[in-house]
Amino acid sequence: MNNYTAPLRDIRFALHDVLGAEALFASLPGGDVANRELIDAVLEEGAKFTEQVLAPLNQSGDREGCTFDKDSGEVRTPAGFKAAFAHYVDGGWAGLTAPEAYGGQHLPETLGAALKEMIDAANLGWGNYPLLSHGATEALKHHGEEWQREVFLRPIVEGRWTGTMCLTEPHCGSDLGLLKTRAVPRDDGTHAIEGTKIFITAGEHDLTDNIVHLVLARLPDAPPGTKGISLFIVPKFKVARDGAVGERNAVRCGSIEHKMGIHGSSTCVMHFDGAAGYLIGQPNRGLAAMFTMMNTARLAVGIQGLGLIDRALQNAVAYARDRLQGRSLGGAKQPDKPADPLIVHADIRRMLLTCKAFAEGGRALALHAASLVDVIERSTDAERKKHADELLSFLTPIVKACLTEWSIEATYHALQCFGGHGYIAEWGMEQLARDARITTIYEGTTGIQALDLLGRKTIQTQGVGLKHFLGMIVEFCTQETMNAELAEFVAPLAKAAQDWQQLTLEIGRRTMGDAEEVGAAAVDYLFYSGYVTLAFWWAKSVAAADRSNASAAFRQAKRDTARFYFQRILPRTLSHAAAIRSGPATLLAIDEEAFVGG
Amino acid sequence: MNNYTAPLRDIRFALHDVLGAEALFASLPGGDVANRELIDAVLEEGAKFTEQVLAPLNQSGDREGCTFDKDSGEVRTPAGFKAAFAHYVDGGWAGLTAPEAYGGQHLPETLGAALKEMIDAANLGWGNYPLLSHGATEALKHHGEEWQREVFLRPIVEGRWTGTMCLTEPHCGSDLGLLKTRAVPRDDGTHAIEGTKIFITAGEHDLTDNIVHLVLARLPDAPPGTKGISLFIVPKFKVARDGAVGERNAVRCGSIEHKMGIHGSSTCVMHFDGAAGYLIGQPNRGLAAMFTMMNTARLAVGIQGLGLIDRALQNAVAYARDRLQGRSLGGAKQPDKPADPLIVHADIRRMLLTCKAFAEGGRALALHAASLVDVIERSTDAERKKHADELLSFLTPIVKACLTEWSIEATYHALQCFGGHGYIAEWGMEQLARDARITTIYEGTTGIQALDLLGRKTIQTQGVGLKHFLGMIVEFCTQETMNAELAEFVAPLAKAAQDWQQLTLEIGRRTMGDAEEVGAAAVDYLFYSGYVTLAFWWAKSVAAADRSNASAAFRQAKRDTARFYFQRILPRTLSHAAAIRSGPATLLAIDEEAFVGG
Repeated sequence: MNNYTAPLRDIRFALHDVLGAEALFASLPGGDVANRELIDAVLEEGAKFTEQVLAPLNQSGDREGCTFDKDSGEVRTPAGFKAAFAHYVDGGWAGLTAPEAYGGQHLPETLGAALKEMIDAANLGWGNYPLLSHGATEALKHHGEEWQREVFLRPIVEGRWTGTMCLTEPHCGSDLGLLKTRAVPRDDGTHAIEGTKIFITAGEHDLTDNIVHLVLARLPDAPPGTKGISLFIVPKFKVARDGAVGERNAVRCGSIEHKMGIHGSSTCVMHFDGAAGYLIGQPNRGLAAMFTMMNTARLAVGIQGLGLIDRALQNAVAYARDRLQGRSLGGAKQPDKPADPLIVHADIRRMLLTCKAFAEGGRALALHAASLVDVIERSTDAERKKHADELLSFLTPIVKACLTEWSIEATYHALQCFGGHGYIAEWGMEQLARDARITTIYEGTTGIQALDLLGRKTIQTQGVGLKHFLGMIVEFCTQETMNAELAEFVAPLAKAAQDWQQLTLEIGRRTMGDAEEVGAAAVDYLFYSGYVTLAFWWAKSVAAADRSNASAAFRQAKRDTARFYFQRILPRTLSHAAAIRSGPATLLAIDEEAFVGG
Repeated sequence: MNNYTAPLRDIRFALHDVLGAEALFASLPGGDVANRELIDAVLEEGAKFTEQVLAPLNQSGDREGCTFDKDSGEVRTPAGFKAAFAHYVDGGWAGLTAPEAYGGQHLPETLGAALKEMIDAANLGWGNYPLLSHGATEALKHHGEEWQREVFLRPIVEGRWTGTMCLTEPHCGSDLGLLKTRAVPRDDGTHAIEGTKIFITAGEHDLTDNIVHLVLARLPDAPPGTKGISLFIVPKFKVARDGAVGERNAVRCGSIEHKMGIHGSSTCVMHFDGAAGYLIGQPNRGLAAMFTMMNTARLAVGIQGLGLIDRALQNAVAYARDRLQGRSLGGAKQPDKPADPLIVHADIRRMLLTCKAFAEGGRALALHAASLVDVIERSTDAERKKHADELLSFLTPIVKACLTEWSIEATYHALQCFGGHGYIAEWGMEQLARDARITTIYEGTTGIQALDLLGRKTIQTQGVGLKHFLGMIVEFCTQETMNAELAEFVAPLAKAAQDWQQLTLEIGRRTMGDAEEVGAAAVDYLFYSGYVTLAFWWAKSVAAADRSNASAAFRQAKRDTARFYFQRILPRTLSHAAAIRSGPATLLAIDEEAFVGG
């Protein structure tokens, strides 16, 4: 009862009209193969695959979930998942953006991100298996030795194996400095990995023959805290340096979690009992290597949010157009029918427009961030690379946290449009809400993203990333300054950018006197930043639509949605600014004993 | 893994110190039995029952859910539910607030509301069975003929039977004018009820021998729309006018819904196949009678929100104090431990304080609303009754919608404090979030409550209820005007009240020119009103705490939380005001074809 149609028209609009993807790719070494024709062909095939293969397995996958066999330690994914993965591999999707040297097609990450949105919208639980492989690919690509890439990366790129990220332990999640898993060197050059990891997505499953775990652990002589963490490759089945697959390694799944959602995705407790692992990258530099994966994964989780927003919107709009209930306050719209469709009601429209503003604005935001990955990876211009890197560092927590928070809000609104039916499993809206709920947690909670944005990415860098983004806004506003059609957006955007800068400086000043200011301001600053960022993409989208070949209706819808966004959503910055300016005192004053007043 | 301790201290504080319950009850006929001693004794017994009997069944009830036997049409509630209901009945809880004439104890509804909070916090799914009985009690009390009360009300009060509200049909929920169920008069004075009702909470279960359905249906000659709806009593087992229970009536459960949450609560499709029903109240005036139930139920659902907020808070605080993760930004708080507890972090505190502000402020708000029910039901002073009735009419949608919306937010924050563990079923936090999700839908969605508040209860009445509440604020601010200790709250509260009035007048003016203004402003106005209302209760709570015998720590916690509320939550009104002032244009402009841009 819950459908998915890939939003090809708007993805193409975002890529071609808003981001100028063809020209952007052409400006990068090896990027010219990704011309408009190829981009559109890939998108169309991706739409077919996700609509026809993945989407039909979404509700059944949720109902069935993964099952764990205690005796064998094996996990069975829901019916159809394995066949869908084979389909994915056969279609060449596994290696879409991976290096050609290891069997990939090396197409832009921007295009990969567009595909990912469709996968996640179609079936979030399934999408986690390729997501983790993508992260492992990045870590191996950037930190693996040549033989490691040949032996471990190639099978992942070919879709024969998948990857995982093994970070969390029972006593440590956000605070990785506490981790205890040990890695003891052996004479054969491997390490014996000993410890327990939890919440390991795709830690065990039946989609592929082997699984490549990337595991954070401590060497015997490692310094304490985060400076003593190394990264290891620990395959489920042992793999020799020549690629020969051997016996079962001493890593096994101890159980799978019973979760609120993403039931199709296995979340495993993994026991490493002296499992053979290969060090990847430098000793004690594992966290840096892991961040390569994590940044990729953070963008990817942001895109999960985007996919959920779009699917929620689609279904809520369909229901709101179909369901007759009540009369328009301005007079009956369909007097020949017993009632008007829900979509005539202003408040239903408020909820749908909120979803639409997040979906389409969020799409431009996410694809722009992905395009920075392409610049960083491909450009030979050091200055351009650096600029992209600084900007992406700044935008990553916004993409991750805001798109996922907005997915919580959007799935809330979309479910609400269904009334009581939204709460019933068969309509599929409650699954979207349950699935969305993990996205603000994994790969770093919203609170962690917010500290990253305000602390590491803004205050510690003297706002370099923010300056780059403000530069984009100023450039845009300057370009459009004479464009009367855009005045209604340009003026408030310029004002919002100025206020954002002002607020950031203010927080920076206050932080010098009190480190707690950062923690107290962080999440509100994150949302504030997200809303201004989205305002930029909405203004830009209207400008792009006006210059495009899109239909008048499409152009008008962009303008209408941008107006809605600027007038009804952007003012949320007012509350966030007030909360930020209230400082840490009201948060820190209360005694911890006094939180529960009953 | 998810615990519940009834917040007795704060409930007592709200009743005795904030609301002056003893004096209030004593001022009402028959209310003097509910003295402080009795109130406290009832609360303590209620705490024991809910903590020891209901709370342990919450997670198991969720896991097991209700089961439906297709052949018999019977519903089995989760293990322990039936015994808990027997316990409830044996304890005399079923008739706590019911009329003495029918076997009840006729204690104040305010006390009943305090008990209800504990029930809902302990086990929301279970709590729906008594909730519906309470609604049926109200309808029978106010609209039933004497024999109907004797025959149907008494067994409900005694807990031998339960009640339901049968409103929704497959094609109509919010818009009851569309309902089709028919009632054809029979020679014996009964009516043959024919039709299908959906989403019937407690429509079928195994807790009691009989179930009394209150069913909206149309008489043959009824006018169309809401003016042609009558209310009927349709028992599961037929009941003669002398109370003799006969054969099975032609009403059966066709299936139960698979829902996001409240799995312990049966949600039934009910088929009426010529079932014998008795008309209750006047023909074609059924909606008015149903509103008696619905208003009761709306307050009750608001209290469900309150219960969930408090339980979420309790568990999140316990986890945040226990779980070591990261270091305080202001320097290590527990340097001897590997990390500080989560509760040192400003952002964790922001989330917990938000829950606390909603829980404790919401408790005063809800109990005050319940106290108005007592005034309306008991007072012999016509002026006082009228005032209470007008004020309660205004506050009911705020209690219902704001407390439930805040329960969505609070369960979000509380789950988030658990990080990944929040997403895992065994911790019980995700159940709270799933259970909360229905509360903004049933008994009228937030959108419906908002239209009720702004349209029916404010604009149509020239703001009479708002004036009464503003009067309370003005009175309080005047009383406290010389109280230096309270100045930090009194000034912003007075300002907020003034702004609220101003905004309301503004909306009223705009509405005269455009009916759509109401729909466009409604939900934002609801939240705006809720935040100002809560500000009043927080200021009042600080004043009450200062004058109470509570410990210095308790008084300080009230002040600290009020400061947090005023500085970090109340400014949300800024965004809502901006959204309201943007008017309906941005909502109505977009073509319905254009909502999906993909």
